[in-house]
Amino acid sequence: MIFFRNDYGEGCIEPILKLLQEKNEEKNPGYGTDDYCARAAELIQSKLPDTKADIHFIASGTLTNVVMIRHVLRPHEVVIAADTAHIATHEGGAIEASGHKIITMPASSGKLSAMSLRKAIHNLVSDASSYLVPKLVYISNATELGTVYTRTELEELSAICKENDMYLMIDGARMAQALMSGIDYTLNDIAKWADLFWIGGTKNGALFGEAVVITNDALKPYFRMIQKQSGAILAKGWLLGLQFMGLFENDDFYKYAKYANDLASIIQNEAIRLGYPLFMRTTTNQLFLVLDQTQYDYLKDKVDFEIWTNWDENIVIRLVTSWNTSKTDVSTLCQYMQLAMDLSKKNEESPQDEEETDE
Amino acid sequence: MIFFRNDYGEGCIEPILKLLQEKNEEKNPGYGTDDYCARAAELIQSKLPDTKADIHFIASGTLTNVVMIRHVLRPHEVVIAADTAHIATHEGGAIEASGHKIITMPASSGKLSAMSLRKAIHNLVSDASSYLVPKLVYISNATELGTVYTRTELEELSAICKENDMYLMIDGARMAQALMSGIDYTLNDIAKWADLFWIGGTKNGALFGEAVVITNDALKPYFRMIQKQSGAILAKGWLLGLQFMGLFENDDFYKYAKYANDLASIIQNEAIRLGYPLFMRTTTNQLFLVLDQTQYDYLKDKVDFEIWTNWDENIVIRLVTSWNTSKTDVSTLCQYMQLAMDLSKKNEESPQDEEETDE
Amino acid sequence: MIFFRNDYGEGCIEPILKLLQEKNEEKNPGYGTDDYCARAAELIQSKLPDTKADIHFIASGTLTNVVMIRHVLRPHEVVIAADTAHIATHEGGAIEASGHKIITMPASSGKLSAMSLRKAIHNLVSDASSYLVPKLVYISNATELGTVYTRTELEELSAICKENDMYLMIDGARMAQALMSGIDYTLNDIAKWADLFWIGGTKNGALFGEAVVITNDALKPYFRMIQKQSGAILAKGWLLGLQFMGLFENDDFYKYAKYANDLASIIQNEAIRLGYPLFMRTTTNQLFLVLDQTQYDYLKDKVDFEIWTNWDENIVIRLVTSWNTSKTDVSTLCQYMQLAMDLSKKNEESPQDEEETDE
Amino acid sequence: MIFFRNDYGEGCIEPILKLLQEKNEEKNPGYGTDDYCARAAELIQSKLPDTKADIHFIASGTLTNVVMIRHVLRPHEVVIAADTAHIATHEGGAIEASGHKIITMPASSGKLSAMSLRKAIHNLVSDASSYLVPKLVYISNATELGTVYTRTELEELSAICKENDMYLMIDGARMAQALMSGIDYTLNDIAKWADLFWIGGTKNGALFGEAVVITNDALKPYFRMIQKQSGAILAKGWLLGLQFMGLFENDDFYKYAKYANDLASIIQNEAIRLGYPLFMRTTTNQLFLVLDQTQYDYLKDKVDFEIWTNWDENIVIRLVTSWNTSKTDVSTLCQYMQLAMDLSKKNEESPQDEEETDE
Repeated sequence: MIFFRNDYGEGCIEPILKLLQEKNEEKNPGYGTDDYCARAAELIQSKLPDTKADIHFIASGTLTNVVMIRHVLRPHEVVIAADTAHIATHEGGAIEASGHKIITMPASSGKLSAMSLRKAIHNLVSDASSYLVPKLVYISNATELGTVYTRTELEELSAICKENDMYLMIDGARMAQALMSGIDYTLNDIAKWADLFWIGGTKNGALFGEAVVITNDALKPYFRMIQKQSGAILAKGWLLGLQFMGLFENDDFYKYAKYANDLASIIQNEAIRLGYPLFMRTTTNQLFLVLDQTQYDYLKDKVDFEIWTNWDENIVIRLVTSWNTSKTDVSTLCQYMQLAMDLSKKNEESPQDEEETDE
Repeated sequence: MIFFRNDYGEGCIEPILKLLQEKNEEKNPGYGTDDYCARAAELIQSKLPDTKADIHFIASGTLTNVVMIRHVLRPHEVVIAADTAHIATHEGGAIEASGHKIITMPASSGKLSAMSLRKAIHNLVSDASSYLVPKLVYISNATELGTVYTRTELEELSAICKENDMYLMIDGARMAQALMSGIDYTLNDIAKWADLFWIGGTKNGALFGEAVVITNDALKPYFRMIQKQSGAILAKGWLLGLQFMGLFENDDFYKYAKYANDLASIIQNEAIRLGYPLFMRTTTNQLFLVLDQTQYDYLKDKVDFEIWTNWDENIVIRLVTSWNTSKTDVSTLCQYMQLAMDLSKKNEESPQDEEETDE
Repeated sequence: MIFFRNDYGEGCIEPILKLLQEKNEEKNPGYGTDDYCARAAELIQSKLPDTKADIHFIASGTLTNVVMIRHVLRPHEVVIAADTAHIATHEGGAIEASGHKIITMPASSGKLSAMSLRKAIHNLVSDASSYLVPKLVYISNATELGTVYTRTELEELSAICKENDMYLMIDGARMAQALMSGIDYTLNDIAKWADLFWIGGTKNGALFGEAVVITNDALKPYFRMIQKQSGAILAKGWLLGLQFMGLFENDDFYKYAKYANDLASIIQNEAIRLGYPLFMRTTTNQLFLVLDQTQYDYLKDKVDFEIWTNWDENIVIRLVTSWNTSKTDVSTLCQYMQLAMDLSKKNEESPQDEEETDE
Repeated sequence: MIFFRNDYGEGCIEPILKLLQEKNEEKNPGYGTDDYCARAAELIQSKLPDTKADIHFIASGTLTNVVMIRHVLRPHEVVIAADTAHIATHEGGAIEASGHKIITMPASSGKLSAMSLRKAIHNLVSDASSYLVPKLVYISNATELGTVYTRTELEELSAICKENDMYLMIDGARMAQALMSGIDYTLNDIAKWADLFWIGGTKNGALFGEAVVITNDALKPYFRMIQKQSGAILAKGWLLGLQFMGLFENDDFYKYAKYANDLASIIQNEAIRLGYPLFMRTTTNQLFLVLDQTQYDYLKDKVDFEIWTNWDENIVIRLVTSWNTSKTDVSTLCQYMQLAMDLSKKNEESPQDEEETDE
C-alpha cells in the first residue's frame, strides 16, 4: 500500500528531530516560559513586520480552536463559519460544549463568501428575537477542501468584520500549504487581515503543535489563562518552541509545504489528463477525485486513502501529500490511476462481461 | 545553578528518544487508532491481571483531569477532593469551566482522609437544599505534597465510594513514584480500588503524555467522544503509544521512578541529619524544606528550586528529582545544604554581626 | 388598534385569577412541595391513564427547554430539530450555552419529517469523525408555524427514536391548541409517544408556567436537581400548581384552546374567501397571511400584529388569537381585511391613481 | 400550627393583587417591553438620584444570580463570596454549572469581611499558578443569616473592589429588610457602592420577581441577551413591572419590610428575656434560636419553622416573619416560647423524672 491518507501520519522533519535529540537533557522552565518558545515567537514575529503580535503554542488543532474561540467570545456572541468548517463538522461539538453557537452558511468550495457572511450578519442583526450578536468569523486557509482564499476574498472578509465590529479568525492548520499555493499574499498580509489566527505545525512536519498569533490588541490580555483553563498549556512547553524553531529557522515551514503542494499538483494534473472528474479543484496538498466503482475497487487495496463522500453511484476519495511523501510513491500512484482508468473504460465498452463477472 | 525545580524540565528517557527516531518516517493511522497505542495499552493491561481496562492516551495532565471528570459527572453531580488537590488549586478553574463544582476538604498532608470524605458526603446528602449529588472522589497518588496513600487508606476510600454509589478517580501524574515509594501495593491493586485513574508519563520520563485507565464498565462507553470534544485526541496519537511502549516495555517506568525517589531520599535524609525542619516528610521525588532567611539567601543563587510558601519568617522550598537528575548534582546540593546550615548557625551565634552586615 | 399580536399579551383566565385571590394569604411550603402542585400533577396524570409520569412545573418556556435538554443529554449527545424550532431560532443560543449542539434539518412546514430525522441520524452515525451521538429529537406541537403533527407522523417519529435508542421530546408551548385542532389523538397518546414533553400554560390562559411531563422511567431521577441548578425552581412554587389546577380542574385548558382555534379558523377562512394567499395553512391559533404593500399599509395602523418575514415584495404577517380574543375584534378584523383587499384591487386596476396618491 | 417557616410561603400584598386583577385583560407587548416595566424602572430609579441605572426584571432569585454572574464574568474571572453565601450553598452548583469558580472565605456572621476579601484577592494575585483573576465580589444584604452590613463595611468592600479593578454585586433578596433594619444608608447609597445589585420582590410581598439594577456603565450593554440565553425573560414580562409598581408606588416595599422586621424584633427580644441563646443576633426578619431537646420537642408540633443546624446536643431553628405575619401569631409564639422554657427548666431541676419518662 502506498500512503496518501493524510498529512499527519508521519513523524517530523529532520531539523526538528535533531533539535529534540540535542536538547533532550537540557533543563528548562515549564509551561512555555522557556527560551525556545521565546525564540520561536521571535522567528514568527519576523515574518509579520507590519504587526506586533502575541504568540502562544498549543499541542493540537481542535484544542487550539476551542481556546481561541472561548477566549474571544462572550456568551451571547456567535461565530459565523462555512458549513464545511472544521469547527462545525469534525470537532465533536467542542465549540458548543464551551457554550457558543456556530452559525453555518453553505459553502460548496469550502470558502465562506462575502455575500454569505453579510447575509448571516444581517439575519442576526435584523432579528431582535435572535438575542445574539455576530462577533467572530472563522475561516480555514487552506480550507478543509484544499482550496485557498484569494487576496480579494480575504480583504473583503476582513473589511466586513471591521465594518461590523467583528473579529476575523483564521484556522491555519494548513496555512503553509495555502501560502505556497501560488497566491499573492504572505503571512504578513494574513496578520493584517486577521485579528487572530494560528499556524499549523502538526500537518506540516512537526510532531505536534500549533502557533497562535494574536494581532488585535484588544484580544491579547488573559489568553494564557483561558489556555490553562482549557488544559492547553503543556508542562514541557519548550517542546513546542523547539519545533517551531525547527520549522522557521531556515524556512523549512515554507519549503516542505511547497514540496507537498508540488507533488499534489502532479497527481491532480495527471488525474485531469486521464479524465478523472475532480470533486474539487485544489491548489494545495489535498486532492479530491471522483471514482467509479471499478476504479475504486482497483485502487482501494493498493492505495491508502480516505473516502470523502458518496456521490450518486460514484465515490469521492481524498488523497493527501505531505513533507514526507516520496516521488516514487507519486509515480506509482499515477500508474495505478492510469490502470484503474483503463479497466473502467474496458468495462464500459463491454458491460455484459462485467455483469457476467458479477455472477 | 543545579536544577531541582521540577520533574518536567527535561526531555525523555533514552528508549523513548530511540523509538521516536526509528519510527519517524513510518506511516500511521491517526487519532490513536494505530498499533503502537494498541501495544502500549496491552503492556499496561498486563500490569493489571485482575481487571479488564479500557486505556486511552492524552497529551497532558490538566486536560486529562478535565476529560475524565467531564466524562464521569452529570451536571448535578460533584467531585470531592482535598483542598490541596491539583484540580482545586492549579488548573485555572478548569473543572468549574466544564460545569462542575468541586467540594474541597482540609487535607494538611495532601491526602483526603476517610473521615473527611464521609463528612463531605454527609453534608451534601443530609441537606436537601444542596440539590447536589456526591458522585466522584478525586485523589492524587503520589499527592501534590509528595506523600503516598497507604494500602489501608486506599481500601477505605474505595469502600466508602462503593457504599455511596460513587466513583474513585486517581490522578497519577506521579503514580510511578508512588508505586516505587516502598508501599505494599501495585498497579494491579490500584486498578481494583479505583474506577478510573491515570498514569503519568510527563513527570516520569516521557516527552509528554498520560495514560487513562478505566476499569469500571459503566464508565467505558463514549470516552473517546468526550475526549475529542475536549480537544484531547492528538492527530499523531501514535506518538503517545510509542512513549508508553518505551516506558513499559522494559519496566523503565518503574526503574526511573525508583531512581528519582532514591535520590530524593538521600537529600531528605541529609536535610534531617543537618537539622533542617521538613514542611512535609515525603517518600517520593518531591521534598519540602523549611529555610531561614540566611539559608535561603545562600541557596537561591546556587540551586534552581521553587518557593512553595512562606511560613512565619521562614521559607518553604520544594526540591524535585527526576529520571535525569545526576548523582553529582545531588552531592553538590548536599554540600550547599551543609554550608547554608553552617552559615545560619554562625549568624545565630553572633546576631550582632549579622545586623552589622545588614547595615 | 385591535390586538392580534400574540397569545401572551394578556393576564389569565378567570378561574386562575380567582384561585390566586382566594389562596393569597394561605401559608405554603416552598419550592413546589405544596399540595397545589401535587393536585395539579394529579389532574394532569388523570389525562394520561396509560402512563405513569413525573410532573414538574417551571415558570417559562425557554427555561423549560433548557432544563429538559440539560437533563437528558450527556455532553457528546446532540438534539435533532427542525430548522424552524424554537430552540434553534428564538432562544438566544440557550441550548448551546448549556453545552449542547443542535442539528437542524430543513422543515418548511415547521414539522420535522421522518425522512429528515432518519437522514440526520444517518449522517452522524455513519461518520466516525463526527464523535457525536444522536440522542434526542425535539419537536414542537403545535409547531412554531401553527401546524400540527398528524397521528401517523408522531407514531413514526416515536418509532424512529425507539429504533435508535433516542428520546422524543415535545415542546408543548401550544399543546392545547394542537390537541384542539381536530386531530385524532389525545394527551394520553402524546404521553405514550414522547419520553418527555411539556404542556404550556403561558400561551393558553395562565399568567405564567409550564408543566413538564416525564414518562420514560430512565429520565425521571434527578430532574429537580437540574431544575434547581438552572434557576428554574420558583420559591413560591404553589403559584404554578394553582394555575395548572385552574387550567385542568374543569378542562378549561381544552375549552379556551378550542375557543382561540375557532376564532383563528374564522379569520383564516375569511382570508381565503377574500383571496389572500396563506404563507402557511394552519389549524391552530396562529395565522400567516401574505399582504401586498397596499394591504399592509392599510392594516398596520388598525391591527396590532407581528411581521413574520418579507417575501419578495410582499409581507408575511402573523395573526394570533387567544383565550381572551373578543368575537367583536374578530369581526372588525374581517372587515378590515375586506377593505384592505378592495383597496388593493382598486390600486391594481388603476395603478396611475396609486402613484398619484403617493405624491 | 403557626407559620414562621419562611417569607415566601404566602401570596402578595394587597396593592399588587389589585393591580393584577385590574390589568388582567389589558393587552401588552411581551418580554418586558411594556409600559409597566418602564414605570417600575422609573420608580426604582427615583430612589437612586445620584446614579443612572439600567433596570431589568427576572422571575426568581437563583436565576437572577446566575444571569448577573454570567453577564459579568469572563471564563478566567472568579467571584469571591462568604462561605455562607447563597450562591455557594443553596443554588445547586448553578454558578459552577455556568462555568465560574467561586472562591469562598469563612464568614461566621454571614458577612464577608474586608480582611477576608483582601486575603482572597492576595491569594489569587500572588500565585501565578492560579491562572485566575478576581473580578467580582458577591455579598448578600441582608445576609443569609439575617445580619446587615454597616455603612463602613460596605464602603470598605466597595473601595477594595475599585482598588483592584473588581465589581461589587449585592444579592438583595432581602434588601428591603436590610434597609429597614435601622442602618444609616439608603438604596441611593447602595447604588453608589455596588456596580450591580438586585432588589428582591419574592421575599417582600410580591408573588414573584426581582429587580436587577446595573449602575456601572461598563456592565450595561447586552444584559438582556444574557438574560434571554439563561431563560430569564418572561413572556408576560409586564407581570413583573406591575408587581414592582405595586411595591414602590406608595413605598409599600419599605413599609412591609419594616413591619416584618418589627415583629421579628419583638420575638427576638422576648427570646433574650426568656434566656434562649441566640445562634446569631439579627436585625431583620430572620431569627436563629438555640433550643434544647425539651424545647424543641415542645415547639415542633405547634410552630412551623426550619431546623437550621445541629449544635452539639442542641438544635438551631430559624424563625421568619413576613409582610403577612399576624401579631396574634407573634403573641402565641411568645407564649409557646415561655412554656417551652418553663418545661426545660423543670426538666433540668428534676432530671430523674426526665430519665424515667424516657424509659
